[in-house]
Amino acid sequence: MDTLDHLAATLGPRNCLTSAEDMAPYAVDWRGAYRGLPRAVLRPASTEEVAAAVRACAAEGLAIVPAGGRTGLCGGAVVSDNGPPAVVMSLERMNRIRAVDARDFSLIAEAGCVIQTVQQAAAAVDRLFPLSWGAQGSAMVGGALSTNAGGIRTIRWGNARDLVLGLEVVLPDGRVLNDLRRVRKDNSGYALRHLFLGGEGTLGVITAAALRLVPALRRVETAFVAVPSPEAALDLLSRVMGSGAEVIAFELIIRECLRIVDRNGIGIRIPLPLDSPWYVMVELAAAHPSVPLRGMLEETLAEAAEAGEATDAALADSEAQRANFWRIREDYPDCARREGPAISTDTSVPVSAVPAFLGRVEKALSARWPEGRLQALGHAGDGNIHVSLGAPAGMDREAWTARAGEAEALVNAIAVDLGGSFSAEHGIGQSKRHAMATHKDPVALDVMRAVKAAIDPLGTMNPGKMLP
Amino acid sequence: MDTLDHLAATLGPRNCLTSAEDMAPYAVDWRGAYRGLPRAVLRPASTEEVAAAVRACAAEGLAIVPAGGRTGLCGGAVVSDNGPPAVVMSLERMNRIRAVDARDFSLIAEAGCVIQTVQQAAAAVDRLFPLSWGAQGSAMVGGALSTNAGGIRTIRWGNARDLVLGLEVVLPDGRVLNDLRRVRKDNSGYALRHLFLGGEGTLGVITAAALRLVPALRRVETAFVAVPSPEAALDLLSRVMGSGAEVIAFELIIRECLRIVDRNGIGIRIPLPLDSPWYVMVELAAAHPSVPLRGMLEETLAEAAEAGEATDAALADSEAQRANFWRIREDYPDCARREGPAISTDTSVPVSAVPAFLGRVEKALSARWPEGRLQALGHAGDGNIHVSLGAPAGMDREAWTARAGEAEALVNAIAVDLGGSFSAEHGIGQSKRHAMATHKDPVALDVMRAVKAAIDPLGTMNPGKMLP
Repeated sequence: MDTLDHLAATLGPRNCLTSAEDMAPYAVDWRGAYRGLPRAVLRPASTEEVAAAVRACAAEGLAIVPAGGRTGLCGGAVVSDNGPPAVVMSLERMNRIRAVDARDFSLIAEAGCVIQTVQQAAAAVDRLFPLSWGAQGSAMVGGALSTNAGGIRTIRWGNARDLVLGLEVVLPDGRVLNDLRRVRKDNSGYALRHLFLGGEGTLGVITAAALRLVPALRRVETAFVAVPSPEAALDLLSRVMGSGAEVIAFELIIRECLRIVDRNGIGIRIPLPLDSPWYVMVELAAAHPSVPLRGMLEETLAEAAEAGEATDAALADSEAQRANFWRIREDYPDCARREGPAISTDTSVPVSAVPAFLGRVEKALSARWPEGRLQALGHAGDGNIHVSLGAPAGMDREAWTARAGEAEALVNAIAVDLGGSFSAEHGIGQSKRHAMATHKDPVALDVMRAVKAAIDPLGTMNPGKMLP
Repeated sequence: MDTLDHLAATLGPRNCLTSAEDMAPYAVDWRGAYRGLPRAVLRPASTEEVAAAVRACAAEGLAIVPAGGRTGLCGGAVVSDNGPPAVVMSLERMNRIRAVDARDFSLIAEAGCVIQTVQQAAAAVDRLFPLSWGAQGSAMVGGALSTNAGGIRTIRWGNARDLVLGLEVVLPDGRVLNDLRRVRKDNSGYALRHLFLGGEGTLGVITAAALRLVPALRRVETAFVAVPSPEAALDLLSRVMGSGAEVIAFELIIRECLRIVDRNGIGIRIPLPLDSPWYVMVELAAAHPSVPLRGMLEETLAEAAEAGEATDAALADSEAQRANFWRIREDYPDCARREGPAISTDTSVPVSAVPAFLGRVEKALSARWPEGRLQALGHAGDGNIHVSLGAPAGMDREAWTARAGEAEALVNAIAVDLGGSFSAEHGIGQSKRHAMATHKDPVALDVMRAVKAAIDPLGTMNPGKMLP
């Protein structure tokens, strides 16, 4: 019996897809930038089935591309075009929440649970699972953990990595690494889970995770603030963080991005006039209802106005207004797409270097492509700004994106020069392997290759991803 | 020129100690339980000197035992008695704070900085470095990170691992892994630093770290509470965490420990009568001065009293009273030592399993050694309880500690059975290698050995430690 027949027998024929039509959704990435046809799409329903399938593939040297909600932006969940024969292993059927323990502030979810489902399971017991970003309605736990997903709340609760207490992983030889524990302290040997978290499926298949919950929020206050410059925005950040208030989001937005939302957004109102070059969205929260959050925010904004850091501000007065504020941020990517092609990046720098970064980027891009429209917004509180360069009106997509390699290299080099990263939160996948080769410390690359060879000696786990 | 002459020439003769007298302090561990004479004690003053010394040792196959403040409790910083020829590499002269950036909430410290010095450098710019435990006046950054130190604040800010933004490490071949960046988000490849954090010096020598700071605390409230049982203590924990107050410590203490402090502590007053079987110390904090912390604590304690979770409580009314509360916790180990020998453990379980753990441990220990005095206190908020069994009055030290292996194995087995760890915060070093062999998942051990062989193929980094 050949391997695919064996897999079909193990998983059931409906969970070992081999027709081009059935496999089509798994053969292209979220952005439509990467395509690769697998030999089969496997859909195991349990850790045991994952392990059996991995063993069967390993025996044949068949490569495995793990996949979840497939919302990644770097082509990590698609078969590499020029790689070895591979199957896509979709974890979508492993979608059980195995346990919720409110007293323990923890929850055990399988890899195929949608992030929003995890958030809802936490909310049902008066807890918060704070990981949150645009794709949370489709992204799954396995993918979020394998890419160490970030998002808008990392200033307060960190990335996916920081919310994991324990992991269950099927190793490349089919053995199960069972570290699915809910202990908060464990110093018994190397912290192996941190290799799989952010490992992009190149070292094994995450099948389940014990996740950390936090107290539910009882007060949230959100302000939309006009600021004269990135430098002023950073002074405001420092002021609000230094005040001791709990800052759960701090987004910096250039005016051009708001104009794009204003032109294209449906039913979104920009709360301030567009007469300022930069804007900030700041959100404070408190889990205890006695915290006088509104007054704290108003006081800090008054001080900031006095100091010239803020020139105007609107506070959300209702949940509907707050939702409207956030729609500006969340709908921006769609609005921008409607205006035509753009070259986008995902860099981070130390928080205090954000103004220098933006100054250098603006100068370099406008000198090289004066016709481009600089768009910049992002998680300034983490130093993670997404800069993109929009095409002038009417420009053809392919003509514009032909500049992508050079433009990305330029922005990446500035970030790295300022002590930052060329991949802040999206990961490497296929799209940034060339940047790994250019920018990553060669010593770090050597150690990564040694670790990869030690854990996946046959190189069957997600080949052609991450390592250059 | 032989290796030691070469090292003396490189580091200067005063920084390559070879006389038994000079080396004596480095030849014994903090507890006096482990002794091992090195060939030399090296005291490099810079990353370059560390790298040069590591290269020279590697060329001769001379093993290296990294050491800092040498306050570890598992013999990790001492040469193994039956190991290969080794030098101790003390990082004590690398004690500079290289940079402090208040706006960035970060600080770069060399491995030989004392933890308390780091705390003070943060406080000088109105920030907090929250890692805190008894040995903070002697322990150094390199050791704290290599052992992933915990302590009393992990319920709020995590272990040492969670406070690191970037690392500088000299690898076993003398190359420098320079990841000393202050970025908060970086998804460019495997998170290598998490191997060295908690790696106990078996993969390389940490020479410096970029550390995360948090806003300074402006309000702190501390309560000493009598509770009828561990179950009630956990209900109280759940209540105070669920209230949304910021809990920065939650310590559970059995009455016997307070009696010991009462008998032996100098100038310490126990704030409540000793008529309750268990006590809790709970500390709330707020970084913003407007948070009505006192009222929040009083309200929660009133609810807890109503629900039968607390039978009595004393709130610290001054900084002096608060300091007195904490002296009870901090002076306990010294007080206990004065009463005679004890067998101690360092286990953790899921927070919600703490009552079951304590129940089973008490039953098992009292059945086996009815003459022993059960002592139990620890970080209940993290599920990390330190159980120890004190000798009956007058019992000889050696006679009592002859039981240590069996008693530890018994407590460890209960913790592991409840999904916990046999080494919550102290690490493995030499003293818990046997427990690694007994309790650690064999698959995890295999992966750890593969990682060790990949990064330290000659096995010269801290041999005889951690891996069984």
